[in-house]
Amino acid sequence: MSAPEQRYIGLDVGRTIRGALVSAEGSILRQHRVVSEVSDAQVFVDQLADVIKTLNNDQESRRAAAAGIGWAGLVNQSAQSIEANPNLVDVSSYDLHAQLERDTSLPVVIDNDANVAAYGEWRAGAARGARDVFFVTLGTGIGAGLILGGVLQRGTRGFAGEFGHFKVDQDGLECGCGGTGCLETVASGPNIVRRVREKLFSDPSFSVSKLARDMEGTLTAERVMQAATENDDLATLVLRDTGIVLGTAIASIINLLNVEVVVLGGGVMAAGDLIMRPIREGVKRATVSQAFKCVRIVPAELAQEAGMIGAAFLARDLFGG
Amino acid sequence: MSAPEQRYIGLDVGRTIRGALVSAEGSILRQHRVVSEVSDAQVFVDQLADVIKTLNNDQESRRAAAAGIGWAGLVNQSAQSIEANPNLVDVSSYDLHAQLERDTSLPVVIDNDANVAAYGEWRAGAARGARDVFFVTLGTGIGAGLILGGVLQRGTRGFAGEFGHFKVDQDGLECGCGGTGCLETVASGPNIVRRVREKLFSDPSFSVSKLARDMEGTLTAERVMQAATENDDLATLVLRDTGIVLGTAIASIINLLNVEVVVLGGGVMAAGDLIMRPIREGVKRATVSQAFKCVRIVPAELAQEAGMIGAAFLARDLFGG
Repeated sequence: MSAPEQRYIGLDVGRTIRGALVSAEGSILRQHRVVSEVSDAQVFVDQLADVIKTLNNDQESRRAAAAGIGWAGLVNQSAQSIEANPNLVDVSSYDLHAQLERDTSLPVVIDNDANVAAYGEWRAGAARGARDVFFVTLGTGIGAGLILGGVLQRGTRGFAGEFGHFKVDQDGLECGCGGTGCLETVASGPNIVRRVREKLFSDPSFSVSKLARDMEGTLTAERVMQAATENDDLATLVLRDTGIVLGTAIASIINLLNVEVVVLGGGVMAAGDLIMRPIREGVKRATVSQAFKCVRIVPAELAQEAGMIGAAFLARDLFGG
Repeated sequence: MSAPEQRYIGLDVGRTIRGALVSAEGSILRQHRVVSEVSDAQVFVDQLADVIKTLNNDQESRRAAAAGIGWAGLVNQSAQSIEANPNLVDVSSYDLHAQLERDTSLPVVIDNDANVAAYGEWRAGAARGARDVFFVTLGTGIGAGLILGGVLQRGTRGFAGEFGHFKVDQDGLECGCGGTGCLETVASGPNIVRRVREKLFSDPSFSVSKLARDMEGTLTAERVMQAATENDDLATLVLRDTGIVLGTAIASIINLLNVEVVVLGGGVMAAGDLIMRPIREGVKRATVSQAFKCVRIVPAELAQEAGMIGAAFLARDLFGG
């Protein structure tokens, strides 16, 4: 563990680059964010270095000791290389890790965004002190991070965590991954919206829903979460079905891994108990009794900050003095 | 690692108690087996101690240094206590671990049977040298063992590995665990037999199957495997469907854990390529491409000996000099 006065920089890189200067105890001391460049890879790489330098632009004694980056895509963690980033400009021709270390004069570690968020929740959030943790992030995509035996498990090439492509329906919809019936085709934000739309089209009784007036292209997952918290029947019903499917899938993982805590984060969790309750019900239905008795299902504590704090802590625990 | 001349005893405890004296390199030097007592717990516990003592009844210099036990049931590995053993006589009122150490004068370690078989295949079999391994045993039940990050993962209470209760069908059959649509309700040995029977009843074209004459109660999973290797259409078809379901479930785990090798053992693997090929096809269909590219799907190498060797090696690695 590092000295308490040490500081670390954590970046959460997606369509927005969110950066923070974080104390060794996990307090956010300063934040900086910019919208990611989407067309020019060099500009994007420069943005990343600039966010780090901006956060680190302080008197010598207060500078960060290292930087961690959570990346929205597949990261080969042992090679520190980006293998895929479907939603960002393609940086595969760059040695991002070497370039960032050179540009910022800091040691840098890169990992998958779900892994760093899991790390944040484990080190400083809802899973503090646990040895075996299943972290799931529910948003535009569905990702996961695993701490087993007190170690963040990245798998053989660093690709662990693709829980969005867990098969929940042998005859389900086609998924962007090339498979069918993946969890994301039911429970991702965009698919929650799709299912709301389908119910609005197919069942006239839902025309009283607050969501009916959002039908013309503006309906978003955030809007569905909000409507649910305002007691909208349609939103509540779709979230309930979503939660049961999610809980059933999570139960299969609990049965296999016997984790002590499942932490749920991401935008879909804005629905609070309206998604947590059916998730817990789905878990309970499908878990073998011994495994169920010793698992807690809890919401994430660090919200949007899990990625930044987790990335900073990854740097702290790897490079800290 | 222990000195090469050290020896260890491994027991695989199910309806039969299978014991072996194993060299530190994994050679089986001597074997002993007895049918498990099913009604008297004290007799059963004495049997276990007797198998160990019989294997260890040699001149002083050749005696074993420790014993490992793979147990067909739930084991709280950290407490070294038996939590459930559905197919054996109930020993929950015994402190089995303390009693065996006292009776045999050896250090003893107890673990779940799938865990020790996974350990055997990892240390001395098909997964030698790998860091991230998913071991699945396909038989009367379906179990699993996980090595992740080079460590056998037992979960928070030692219950990890309940892959048989992985949900494959939201509307599936009821399972003994209380859930529905568990993998075991499709792909366990007894359920393979059930599905053969159902096809024989429902489709007259299968009346030419070798299996038709076994309908009156004598049909076994072994018989189905054998018929498949003799080109029986019905057996081949049911095994093919079984393999696809298994492969699809295994794919969900590969997506989540990014293991480098999946090892398949147990009685159902007697069907060889007739089960391996559809399993590989199911895996390929449902795995995200990056994870698929770096995984091998292989049969177990140690066959019936995996449990004994794994249990002996668990003792070696825990107690070895």
